[in-house]
Amino acid sequence: MPNFNTPPTLNAGRSVFFVSDGTGVTAETFGHAVLTQFDMRFKQIRLPFVDNEEKAHAAVQQINAAFKADGQRPIVFSTLVTPKLSAILHQAQGMHMDLFQTFVEPLEQELGVQSTHTIGRSHNITDSQEYNDRIEAINFSLAHDDGQSKRNLEAADLILVGVSRSGKTPTSLYLAMQYGLKVANYPLIPEDFERGKFPSPLLAYKQKIFGLTISPERLAQIRNERLRGSKYASLENCRYEVNEAERMMQAAGIRWLSSTVKSIEEIAAMILQELKSDKPVF
Amino acid sequence: MPNFNTPPTLNAGRSVFFVSDGTGVTAETFGHAVLTQFDMRFKQIRLPFVDNEEKAHAAVQQINAAFKADGQRPIVFSTLVTPKLSAILHQAQGMHMDLFQTFVEPLEQELGVQSTHTIGRSHNITDSQEYNDRIEAINFSLAHDDGQSKRNLEAADLILVGVSRSGKTPTSLYLAMQYGLKVANYPLIPEDFERGKFPSPLLAYKQKIFGLTISPERLAQIRNERLRGSKYASLENCRYEVNEAERMMQAAGIRWLSSTVKSIEEIAAMILQELKSDKPVF
Repeated sequence: MPNFNTPPTLNAGRSVFFVSDGTGVTAETFGHAVLTQFDMRFKQIRLPFVDNEEKAHAAVQQINAAFKADGQRPIVFSTLVTPKLSAILHQAQGMHMDLFQTFVEPLEQELGVQSTHTIGRSHNITDSQEYNDRIEAINFSLAHDDGQSKRNLEAADLILVGVSRSGKTPTSLYLAMQYGLKVANYPLIPEDFERGKFPSPLLAYKQKIFGLTISPERLAQIRNERLRGSKYASLENCRYEVNEAERMMQAAGIRWLSSTVKSIEEIAAMILQELKSDKPVF
Repeated sequence: MPNFNTPPTLNAGRSVFFVSDGTGVTAETFGHAVLTQFDMRFKQIRLPFVDNEEKAHAAVQQINAAFKADGQRPIVFSTLVTPKLSAILHQAQGMHMDLFQTFVEPLEQELGVQSTHTIGRSHNITDSQEYNDRIEAINFSLAHDDGQSKRNLEAADLILVGVSRSGKTPTSLYLAMQYGLKVANYPLIPEDFERGKFPSPLLAYKQKIFGLTISPERLAQIRNERLRGSKYASLENCRYEVNEAERMMQAAGIRWLSSTVKSIEEIAAMILQELKSDKPVF
């Protein structure tokens, strides 16, 4: 459980600052994309809403203080638009990673338009169709989690199937949240294996079904965390279910992939690749 | 609904390529952080798993073909680690945004370690405690969505409250997925307003409760999309509920913010800022 109140301790790794004149979402997303490349822990400090000179100077002081305390210069990811504030921030004794100077300014020139930050317009994302589609996709995916509803499956962009705890739910929610896809998910359960038939409500939608499988060993480990010692979690039962599920998917001609050593981001990327989505990003 | 099969059309905007030697998650996250700064639509093409010279040359051809078709050079976000493959890709007639050359290489020097990509180690994220905490947080947040379960609320990192459709569910799931926080959410309903008392199962956890409110006009709009013409969705009822909910939160001394014009990312950032989370990023 994260601890919100304890101040950062010295052994928590290099200090990383995310400095923004807004909420800091962009600075953080960008910083995380870079930091995930390093197998280290970082001590993160968010400095959002740095929108005047006084706050910029305060940020400089805080970064310099971290340098003094750590004995190592902090990494500073920043998305300050105003050149004056950016110049103040760059006085801090940190390693500066400036998203705007590096990428957004050249891209403004290339595209021949100003970025929404630069023109200082409050970007009310909640007005956009894309945003509302994402929220709608989250609601759809929740309502169609774990086979809860067979209604309106024709509206689904994708239907994930697989044994219980093969990763369907987090993958569905991730695809809905990040890509605005309406993803239903449907468990393959012992009753299906006994009948030896793929769940019939789904057969009409074969084109948009994608299977997740998982190694029986990993599945037993995950299930044991919830229901230790149960038949449900036993390696023998997991072997049986995975084996039957794979056989059933193969017989029905359904594409699948293994979630065993993949993160939800990786599973999502592979499914999207498979679906050859060419929809616009925003 | 996204269309997986139609080829990109000419009027869908500038072509943007995400080129990666892996799944492309990093290239995409990075690219999105930059592109969201522009109020334009882009035609996205993912080129994952570009891990040999043949595929790198094929990528170059595809980018050049897009240039020819669009009449504008494509934007190319890339995260190729191997210098040889990166050099081939840079022959393409695009505007190159290279995450590794720009940020990761300098950071390797600064930190005195190689990035996980550079050392070519398959990064099995699913082994990490942080990843498993995220999955556990998603499961917790789902089980505690919409006041479904009052059990184990002491394990919650955060409890969101607010009227129905004020944004609690997507915010909870986003905080779980992105930050590994266990977020319960609990609706404030007409029965609470009639009793005039904050829901009693929650009172013991006041320190970790955060409220979401919303303008009655926006709330009526959202509710009408689901249940058009109902009393539930009427502006009059929405005014009553929002008013009562705000009064109840104020009386109980609960912090809150308005979700009216905020994206879930922005709401999450503001809540985290309020909670002053200093937990390590990874």
